[in-house]
Amino acid sequence: MSIVTVANNATAPTQFLRGKGETYAYRRIGGGFRRPLLCLQHFTGTLDNWDPAVTDPLGDGREVILFDSAGVGRSTGKVPTTVAGMAAHALDFLDGLCVTSCDVLGFSLGGMVAQQMALERPSSINRMILVGTAPRGGEDIMHLEKPSLAKHLGDPALKGYAVLQKIFFAPTSSSQAAGGAFIERLAQRREDLDTPSGPDVAAAQMTAFREWEQPVGPRLGELAGVHQPTLVVNGIHDEMIPVSNSYRLAENLPNAVLLAYPDAGHGSLFQFPESFTRQAAAFLMSDSPFAPY
Amino acid sequence: MSIVTVANNATAPTQFLRGKGETYAYRRIGGGFRRPLLCLQHFTGTLDNWDPAVTDPLGDGREVILFDSAGVGRSTGKVPTTVAGMAAHALDFLDGLCVTSCDVLGFSLGGMVAQQMALERPSSINRMILVGTAPRGGEDIMHLEKPSLAKHLGDPALKGYAVLQKIFFAPTSSSQAAGGAFIERLAQRREDLDTPSGPDVAAAQMTAFREWEQPVGPRLGELAGVHQPTLVVNGIHDEMIPVSNSYRLAENLPNAVLLAYPDAGHGSLFQFPESFTRQAAAFLMSDSPFAPY
Repeated sequence: MSIVTVANNATAPTQFLRGKGETYAYRRIGGGFRRPLLCLQHFTGTLDNWDPAVTDPLGDGREVILFDSAGVGRSTGKVPTTVAGMAAHALDFLDGLCVTSCDVLGFSLGGMVAQQMALERPSSINRMILVGTAPRGGEDIMHLEKPSLAKHLGDPALKGYAVLQKIFFAPTSSSQAAGGAFIERLAQRREDLDTPSGPDVAAAQMTAFREWEQPVGPRLGELAGVHQPTLVVNGIHDEMIPVSNSYRLAENLPNAVLLAYPDAGHGSLFQFPESFTRQAAAFLMSDSPFAPY
Repeated sequence: MSIVTVANNATAPTQFLRGKGETYAYRRIGGGFRRPLLCLQHFTGTLDNWDPAVTDPLGDGREVILFDSAGVGRSTGKVPTTVAGMAAHALDFLDGLCVTSCDVLGFSLGGMVAQQMALERPSSINRMILVGTAPRGGEDIMHLEKPSLAKHLGDPALKGYAVLQKIFFAPTSSSQAAGGAFIERLAQRREDLDTPSGPDVAAAQMTAFREWEQPVGPRLGELAGVHQPTLVVNGIHDEMIPVSNSYRLAENLPNAVLLAYPDAGHGSLFQFPESFTRQAAAFLMSDSPFAPY
């Protein structure tokens, strides 16, 4: 891997890597001798949706690698309609980068992809941070038709990142203020921007959520086979992927610490970036076989 | 307060303080300029049940104060049959020590007492750590007749601390090994021992659990009035006070971080003392009005 890296997702250049079938857009932030951290993004999110307040501190001592899956942002190809299809692209990307072992930060949809990667090729995944996500067979995953979400998604007064402020944060003044700071940080990036996701991306990813809601075999049973030390994180008032899904992850993964934030919704990592990056860095720095850190 | 303290619960002398009506046994460990940390003990536990691997590191920078409530260990009086009665003794003890503001670590029954203290006299309680405990109106609190617990409590081959190894730890080899190390640490204290709790203590405290299971007003409603930054901790496989009670605490307290440990039961803090004390110290050191640390 290149040792030429930059430390800021507001300015890091977008790079491109040719995989087996597609060309993937990605960015590298930070650098150091620790394992790289692969960051897998949420529903319709692109490289531009990663909060510099989260990615940049984590780049202290390691490369943070942001990745657009096939059909997202400026990556070529079609968006898979299953999480397994997305995991195949992420593994292809790691192969193209010659990364044989990495840590993974998977947020929301990205957390599902991370779990699938760990099941399919455990040797490549060292430690996982799963934020605002759900196990296969989880409950109430991304039902955007729910009144609590639909009222914001259907509000013509809300444009661009302002929608994220509403749906990623809790309806309190403190959480909404944190959401305002978050979208200001996202807006710091002004050049070399990704292509925003359109309805085709959303439709394919939504199909993948519906497929992920269906158990394969005994519900939650496959989690017993995921032995990576894992940190499960959520906002206690997540409306998009409720915290009960994080409870089920922590109860059924054999080696997972659960951390839940108060006054926070889906975007808890962006609401408390100082705490989250401190906790995440301490977790990633541990060389214990056990998750507690 | 005295500045003469020692740093080890294996050797700290037991001291006695005359309250309004009773004389309380207590110990001081560590010392420093931070707020003292009052430690409130579990069902039938005495000063001797505090694990030095938990209490001693927390004494770095602050006094850790271990406390026997009325009727427990060598404290005089009768064990109250309500959590509110126990909270009154703890507040009386703080008054006797001239402590006007402290942090509290409440484990199991002690966590219920801590919540009651925060409700009754919020000005005295700065930050709370609630481990393996339940809100008023919680579910499945200390039902020792459950087969998973009764088989150990009724096993004539298990004596003394060996019972704790079974019921505080998960039934895995790794958790039981940690339990073995825990009871070895408890056994390091050989002199100036507390009086073990007898059936009268157990019966009164069990009555208090049953009373605590009953909601007063809307279930869990009073938690909205507890604004102290709080760290809620549990083992994900707690059989004595199931982790669902910690979920309810984190969901209903307005300012609580939830931390749950894998492969652990009721005694998660004793299973992972290095992680627990690192997390607890970081939480206590924060001067933010928000719980995340």
